[in-house]
Amino acid sequence: MTITITAFERSPDGGKGLARDTRVRWALEEAGLPYEVRLVSMRAMKEAAHLALHPFGQIPTYEEGELALFETGAIVLHIAERRPGLLPTDANARARAITWMFAALNTVEPPILELVTVKFVEGDKPWKDERMPLVHDRVRARLTQLAARLGGADWLDGDFSAGDLLMVSVLLRARPSGLLDEFSSLAAYVARGEARPAYQRAFAAQLAINAAPSPAG
Amino acid sequence: MTITITAFERSPDGGKGLARDTRVRWALEEAGLPYEVRLVSMRAMKEAAHLALHPFGQIPTYEEGELALFETGAIVLHIAERRPGLLPTDANARARAITWMFAALNTVEPPILELVTVKFVEGDKPWKDERMPLVHDRVRARLTQLAARLGGADWLDGDFSAGDLLMVSVLLRARPSGLLDEFSSLAAYVARGEARPAYQRAFAAQLAINAAPSPAG
Repeated sequence: MTITITAFERSPDGGKGLARDTRVRWALEEAGLPYEVRLVSMRAMKEAAHLALHPFGQIPTYEEGELALFETGAIVLHIAERRPGLLPTDANARARAITWMFAALNTVEPPILELVTVKFVEGDKPWKDERMPLVHDRVRARLTQLAARLGGADWLDGDFSAGDLLMVSVLLRARPSGLLDEFSSLAAYVARGEARPAYQRAFAAQLAINAAPSPAG
Repeated sequence: MTITITAFERSPDGGKGLARDTRVRWALEEAGLPYEVRLVSMRAMKEAAHLALHPFGQIPTYEEGELALFETGAIVLHIAERRPGLLPTDANARARAITWMFAALNTVEPPILELVTVKFVEGDKPWKDERMPLVHDRVRARLTQLAARLGGADWLDGDFSAGDLLMVSVLLRARPSGLLDEFSSLAAYVARGEARPAYQRAFAAQLAINAAPSPAG
């Protein structure tokens, strides 16, 4: 059955690979599953047809026959459960890899997303400059804990897993602020993720769309 | 094998059931699994023994024989996979229920947690009063979308699932602000969750600890 995901018609990051469809593309590439992409404009994302697929009006979504999913974490887990390579076969190791998936999205990403809130959503507010260092420190606190756990290992728990896929993707969003590069072991961890052929194919596929001439120009 | 979870020695909410151990207790009660609780002080939470279990120094954790997990979402999923009652047996319905687990923790909870940041973490900052309405509006935007999807249904997708368990738990955190009660269908949805015998047992168990005389007094 054909797998179809949705992505931004034009990603707000201009093709840096930070939009969440890159995470799903990466998982599909690791799993060796071919897929099609339907591009959605910012306007269409808030209209009824897309809201039927994604109640919060975002991308990506995932369709395969009768199944329709949203939420990147759930989509990546669904892919990981179907093909080898993204979750260990040992039951306990599998549960730990899934723990890292939730940790990436739930514990590490929220303070990183606050960087975007301060800079863009509240970028015109008088408190922007005074608030940014507080948000930076909250990100640093999480990255310090994560670096302590990673230690000198290549991946978070044994072989590369869907937990690493999501953690690397989340950490990439801390790179533009300079915070990732304050933690050399985490920067190297992210570089290991980016070096994977599956990541490179996923990145190139989203770039091909976002680097193309604008539909408007 | 004995299941042991960790919880606050004294929850910051004084027993309102908003600490994350309540979510795990609820899942264990729905699944009919007995469990033990080890209480952890705020200080011990940041020490090496606890950090070995939870790299981000939080509660709850979950131990069962050789298996040690952290992250509430991962623990609830682990419980749901082992016993009937929290995930549908149909594969597609199961994937959709897991989608709601991620949606609760990843899409709905982050703006709700910002209420805590504004009120407590940044409660002494000059921007507090001007920023609060912005954060309220972000919560309202999510609750509006969620209410649209729920419609007149009892639960988010068919029977009660681990997705509802986490969504109800997340929405409970929006109640103190008054925002939950602006959405009558969501308030009724939360009330249905609270009425479940398993929730009531979980709530009572955490209250028994948090309503006890303080260890210091």
